[in-house]
Amino acid sequence: MSPCRAVARLPDGNVSTVDLSRIDELLVDPGSAVWLDIQDPAESDINVLRQEFGFHELSLEDATRREQRPKVDEYPGYYFIVLYAASAAERIGTHEIHCFWGKNYVVTLHDGPLAPVDTAIKRWSSANDPRERTVAHQVYALLDAVVDEYFPVLDAVAERIAEIEDDIFDARQQTLRELFEIRRQLLNARRTLAPSRDVINSLLRRDIPVFPPELVPYLADVYDHAIRVIDTLDLQHDLLSSAVETYLSVTSNKLNQTMRTLTALTIALMVPTLIAGVYGMNFRNMPELEWPVGYPFALTLMAFIAGALLLLFKRIGWL
Amino acid sequence: MSPCRAVARLPDGNVSTVDLSRIDELLVDPGSAVWLDIQDPAESDINVLRQEFGFHELSLEDATRREQRPKVDEYPGYYFIVLYAASAAERIGTHEIHCFWGKNYVVTLHDGPLAPVDTAIKRWSSANDPRERTVAHQVYALLDAVVDEYFPVLDAVAERIAEIEDDIFDARQQTLRELFEIRRQLLNARRTLAPSRDVINSLLRRDIPVFPPELVPYLADVYDHAIRVIDTLDLQHDLLSSAVETYLSVTSNKLNQTMRTLTALTIALMVPTLIAGVYGMNFRNMPELEWPVGYPFALTLMAFIAGALLLLFKRIGWL
Amino acid sequence: MSPCRAVARLPDGNVSTVDLSRIDELLVDPGSAVWLDIQDPAESDINVLRQEFGFHELSLEDATRREQRPKVDEYPGYYFIVLYAASAAERIGTHEIHCFWGKNYVVTLHDGPLAPVDTAIKRWSSANDPRERTVAHQVYALLDAVVDEYFPVLDAVAERIAEIEDDIFDARQQTLRELFEIRRQLLNARRTLAPSRDVINSLLRRDIPVFPPELVPYLADVYDHAIRVIDTLDLQHDLLSSAVETYLSVTSNKLNQTMRTLTALTIALMVPTLIAGVYGMNFRNMPELEWPVGYPFALTLMAFIAGALLLLFKRIGWL
Amino acid sequence: MSPCRAVARLPDGNVSTVDLSRIDELLVDPGSAVWLDIQDPAESDINVLRQEFGFHELSLEDATRREQRPKVDEYPGYYFIVLYAASAAERIGTHEIHCFWGKNYVVTLHDGPLAPVDTAIKRWSSANDPRERTVAHQVYALLDAVVDEYFPVLDAVAERIAEIEDDIFDARQQTLRELFEIRRQLLNARRTLAPSRDVINSLLRRDIPVFPPELVPYLADVYDHAIRVIDTLDLQHDLLSSAVETYLSVTSNKLNQTMRTLTALTIALMVPTLIAGVYGMNFRNMPELEWPVGYPFALTLMAFIAGALLLLFKRIGWL
Amino acid sequence: MSPCRAVARLPDGNVSTVDLSRIDELLVDPGSAVWLDIQDPAESDINVLRQEFGFHELSLEDATRREQRPKVDEYPGYYFIVLYAASAAERIGTHEIHCFWGKNYVVTLHDGPLAPVDTAIKRWSSANDPRERTVAHQVYALLDAVVDEYFPVLDAVAERIAEIEDDIFDARQQTLRELFEIRRQLLNARRTLAPSRDVINSLLRRDIPVFPPELVPYLADVYDHAIRVIDTLDLQHDLLSSAVETYLSVTSNKLNQTMRTLTALTIALMVPTLIAGVYGMNFRNMPELEWPVGYPFALTLMAFIAGALLLLFKRIGWL
Repeated sequence: MSPCRAVARLPDGNVSTVDLSRIDELLVDPGSAVWLDIQDPAESDINVLRQEFGFHELSLEDATRREQRPKVDEYPGYYFIVLYAASAAERIGTHEIHCFWGKNYVVTLHDGPLAPVDTAIKRWSSANDPRERTVAHQVYALLDAVVDEYFPVLDAVAERIAEIEDDIFDARQQTLRELFEIRRQLLNARRTLAPSRDVINSLLRRDIPVFPPELVPYLADVYDHAIRVIDTLDLQHDLLSSAVETYLSVTSNKLNQTMRTLTALTIALMVPTLIAGVYGMNFRNMPELEWPVGYPFALTLMAFIAGALLLLFKRIGWL
Repeated sequence: MSPCRAVARLPDGNVSTVDLSRIDELLVDPGSAVWLDIQDPAESDINVLRQEFGFHELSLEDATRREQRPKVDEYPGYYFIVLYAASAAERIGTHEIHCFWGKNYVVTLHDGPLAPVDTAIKRWSSANDPRERTVAHQVYALLDAVVDEYFPVLDAVAERIAEIEDDIFDARQQTLRELFEIRRQLLNARRTLAPSRDVINSLLRRDIPVFPPELVPYLADVYDHAIRVIDTLDLQHDLLSSAVETYLSVTSNKLNQTMRTLTALTIALMVPTLIAGVYGMNFRNMPELEWPVGYPFALTLMAFIAGALLLLFKRIGWL
Repeated sequence: MSPCRAVARLPDGNVSTVDLSRIDELLVDPGSAVWLDIQDPAESDINVLRQEFGFHELSLEDATRREQRPKVDEYPGYYFIVLYAASAAERIGTHEIHCFWGKNYVVTLHDGPLAPVDTAIKRWSSANDPRERTVAHQVYALLDAVVDEYFPVLDAVAERIAEIEDDIFDARQQTLRELFEIRRQLLNARRTLAPSRDVINSLLRRDIPVFPPELVPYLADVYDHAIRVIDTLDLQHDLLSSAVETYLSVTSNKLNQTMRTLTALTIALMVPTLIAGVYGMNFRNMPELEWPVGYPFALTLMAFIAGALLLLFKRIGWL
Repeated sequence: MSPCRAVARLPDGNVSTVDLSRIDELLVDPGSAVWLDIQDPAESDINVLRQEFGFHELSLEDATRREQRPKVDEYPGYYFIVLYAASAAERIGTHEIHCFWGKNYVVTLHDGPLAPVDTAIKRWSSANDPRERTVAHQVYALLDAVVDEYFPVLDAVAERIAEIEDDIFDARQQTLRELFEIRRQLLNARRTLAPSRDVINSLLRRDIPVFPPELVPYLADVYDHAIRVIDTLDLQHDLLSSAVETYLSVTSNKLNQTMRTLTALTIALMVPTLIAGVYGMNFRNMPELEWPVGYPFALTLMAFIAGALLLLFKRIGWL
Repeated sequence: MSPCRAVARLPDGNVSTVDLSRIDELLVDPGSAVWLDIQDPAESDINVLRQEFGFHELSLEDATRREQRPKVDEYPGYYFIVLYAASAAERIGTHEIHCFWGKNYVVTLHDGPLAPVDTAIKRWSSANDPRERTVAHQVYALLDAVVDEYFPVLDAVAERIAEIEDDIFDARQQTLRELFEIRRQLLNARRTLAPSRDVINSLLRRDIPVFPPELVPYLADVYDHAIRVIDTLDLQHDLLSSAVETYLSVTSNKLNQTMRTLTALTIALMVPTLIAGVYGMNFRNMPELEWPVGYPFALTLMAFIAGALLLLFKRIGWL
């Protein structure tokens, strides 16, 4: 069986880690609230869920699949929720969370350890007020922790974009690679985070309210944060688009400058070559050739003309 | 007559292949459920449909045409559904399926053999529970098989995009060709698959429910998958757009590099040519020409300057 | 007076061409149905319409103007409809049709002969079933013929796009001209055809149904075709956008190739020129000059180096 | 006081220019209809409006400001309307019109003389039927004249776009300047004309109808024209976008051609230079140098090779 | 404690600055209206708000955070409003304002001094009519001052865009930098100002009206201004996009011109070099070499051909 944890508010209001074997007796007690967190769920875990919780076959099947779309499915007696957490170590990662939310339990499934789930469990189980240890508070704690975790990701992206924007006028290939990479990650992240926002909205807008009234402003706040996240992702996407267009203009501009430099240097070399060619001609009657100072004169002429050209090109901005 | 197959749930609950001639008696028996699958429908097949099933002339006409838009048309006593399956061998293919769905029958028409239809018939006819052998289950099985077949296509596309993304910084013409080709296929696929998704939604949202309540979550699941497919197609389209823009920037960048290399090499060759030109001048008084080591000195000078220039250009990144 | 035609279903159910002078007596007979088709309407025709049919001054004014927006205007006792037919000879043409639709008549006005109108009149007048000779069938026949005529246009465009796509990697200026031209025509066509689709929808969605129920599925079919046309136009627009972006990338790529070829050839010529320059120097002491085989040796050296360079450039793909 | 004009329908049905001092007595007479047109309104004019008409302070403040957004504000007893006329002399101009519309008066304010206002006053005051001299007809005449004036602007823009499209394959800088300029003007025009259209719609769609029923089809016609104007502006915007993209491709293509020409000419010159270099070498033993026809032979060789190269480059399309 | 100011309308209708310690007695008096403005709120200020006003913990938490999304949160007894002011010194700045709006008080919090808040307080406190000193007028004064402050920002942006547009055909790198910078600022500004507009709309559209009827037209006016601001931002964004595309075309065009100049100059130098090479050949029999005027003839020939070429290139526009 996979690493899993069961935390329960016992009927006396206290919260403590409980043994998995005690879950069935807690589930039938309406005064308790259980949070079962399963990491890297295996077939055996799904079987436990099937037997102990009696979940619909379809939701269990969804729970074993990956890359689900964020959604809220209503089943008799419980909700099945798919949403995504985000992280930003080297790249923007999105992490799928499956959540079963019933009358007196929340079951969360995910691959690998996941900071927001840990945070949520800790916060809920250490709430000061025992009234804040209901199942709705569990869900609120989870959503809040998940959405809060989006912000450091946005900050990380913003930092990388700022770096790219600083480098963009150098038009290095490396900058382009980073632009391309972060854009791809952003597109990928937006695809999972945008519907995650809709999940919160759909929980808030149910015909039959699923949250107690005192929690609604808190969830509205979480929803508001989620909107802000998507807004920022959109802004960052626009900033990157603008950066790509600018990059193209910068390279185009650099090419112009390179070509002008080429013109200048080539011409500054071609002129003395022509002079050398002239004095290399074999005419019988070329007075300069007889001059004692003909050779230094020619060299000086070459140097002078080349220097004058380079100076001229410098003036008109070609070098 | 075209290759066709009739599978029926007999009133006793068993499913077996039946002879076409028995269809009329099964159709009048409300306890039976027939699945008639016609491959490469010919005029004669349409005539059979007209006589045996009494379909509206308009729907029969639609059934003979190709490149219909995915849709659900309601006719008295039956629905006429057009939707598209997808496949990804060498290119993304879309395959039109026409489906008549009546009280106790489903008729499917398509060109060539089509995996999802085979899968659906097999799954429906081998359902464990006899209650899962209703006509609504036929339609569910068909929709589910069709949408499930989209995912390998997405994976194939994702793989090709990943290949393109790996190659993009080489800026080869071949990569551009592939980009162009996959984009065209994606645009084509999206045009038929997006309305196929709406077909499922329109079946789910009918004022008069067309599916028994226990099937609704299953169809919602299929619909959810279809949304995810379209989301992914959109994402892939965005990724390709980003790849095309990047490709353009990469070629622009490469051109810059090429031009700089040209500058460097040309200049590194022009300088020794100038030196040779100088010592080719015919001035009477050129001391170097008389030096015993004049020639090796000149050669060394040329080699040294050319080498120094190449080194310099290497330093400043022009080579 | 302009060339015009009056076809009428007489009260006995037969359809025949009638003389214009008989129209007024047919109009007052509710059992008859008249189709008056006026080509290149002149002021005198408008006067006839004003006197015989008593149309509102505003609709008559609209009927004389060109480049109207597709629309359905409801007037007491009749509808005034503007829609567009399409044709694709050398370019995509759109042809304005004005249509007055009253209780027992349809009046169509257009410039030049128009195939869909001819088709519609023929189809309606030769309907097998006398019940299919109502005025609503006239309008259906017209809409159906107009929309059917869109498809060959789409096919013609698709063919030209396919040609362009085949040629795009040659990056010829001619291809760009064609791209630009077809894009312009497509934008123009979309502007008139898209609202033509809305005309059909608005006739179908009236609060007071304007078509008999048995005609509704037929009109829904026409509407469906119109949607498909616009979908395809959108797809073609996207394909052309993708083609333009690809064209830009191809030219950028070609420029790169051209520049590399230039580098290669120039350098392959500069090196022997340098060698010639070296042996053209006037140093007293140049042993090679005295060699009997000095000259062939120099030529061979030049040829060998140039050949080696060309081979090298071929290897690294610069030629 | 600014140049202003007061035209009134007197209670006897006749329309004539009236003295400003008589306005207050006409305003209290429900049988009269006054049109007060103020050009370049000054502070004193606003004071008159405040005292005579008793307009709300906010609408008076709006009337003194410029660059208002097109809108309809409802105040007790009158509407305050902002809309824009258009003109196309050298550039597309938009001209703000402020309009107060009360029970028996219309007040229009604008800067400089404005053709549509003149047209509207003239048309209204010279209506054949005295019943067409109501205040609603005033407003209709104004809206109609304003929208009618958009069409010559569209035509002027279309003409300039056509000129640009003709010139685009020459890729001259001037064409780009014009493209840029017309695009900016179009964007500016669209920003004011699009909401002007909504003004008409909002007047038509009021819960309490503001126009007599017989005027509604006329206003619907004006609204229809306004929609067509915006449609055409959108089309023109798309055509210009397509033109800009094409321009970029054309310049890219031209650069390619220029580079190839450069390659061709440079190489055609480098080869004879190499030959001259070869025969300028100082080898003792060069048989050609001794030939009597050596010199003409060398010249012929140079000319022949250069000619052959130019011919070759012509063939492969590099020249 | 941070710099803060309390201005109150005392029950006698007069407005004066009050001491913070008197706030609690004013708050309980329904006849008074307090405006408490806190700059750079510190923890201690939040504590005062918690104790004196009893705000919900969530809104207090929001008030301490920065980069909130513009919004209106309804709490029992008060609204919590987040909106943004704008300023344009060197760059477009956006400044967050938090506002608590209760029955007889408004509390504003912001970082640093903020002109619109000062303006609003001054305007409200110096209103002529005592009836304009209600809390609703406070909020109106604040919104109006905030939105009015947007216009100078738009003007500043418009000025910078005009400068960029003037410079764009010079295609300097600096222009591109400014384009990039202003675009980024515009994208950032739009993200905060667009939802600020929605804040005003949401206050206007509440089911239970929050403003007295006589204030509604004034707020509609503010809302109208806010729409205009966003419209203008959108227009400016479009103008900048058009400028970027044009910039790219201009650089592309310039590159073409540069390349043609290079061709011209290079070729004009290569031809005399070839001539010099020809007369540098060592053929025994070269008649020109013996001519007395051979050398000046050769020089003249070189100058003539070079001049002719330059003239030709000037003609065909390559120089």
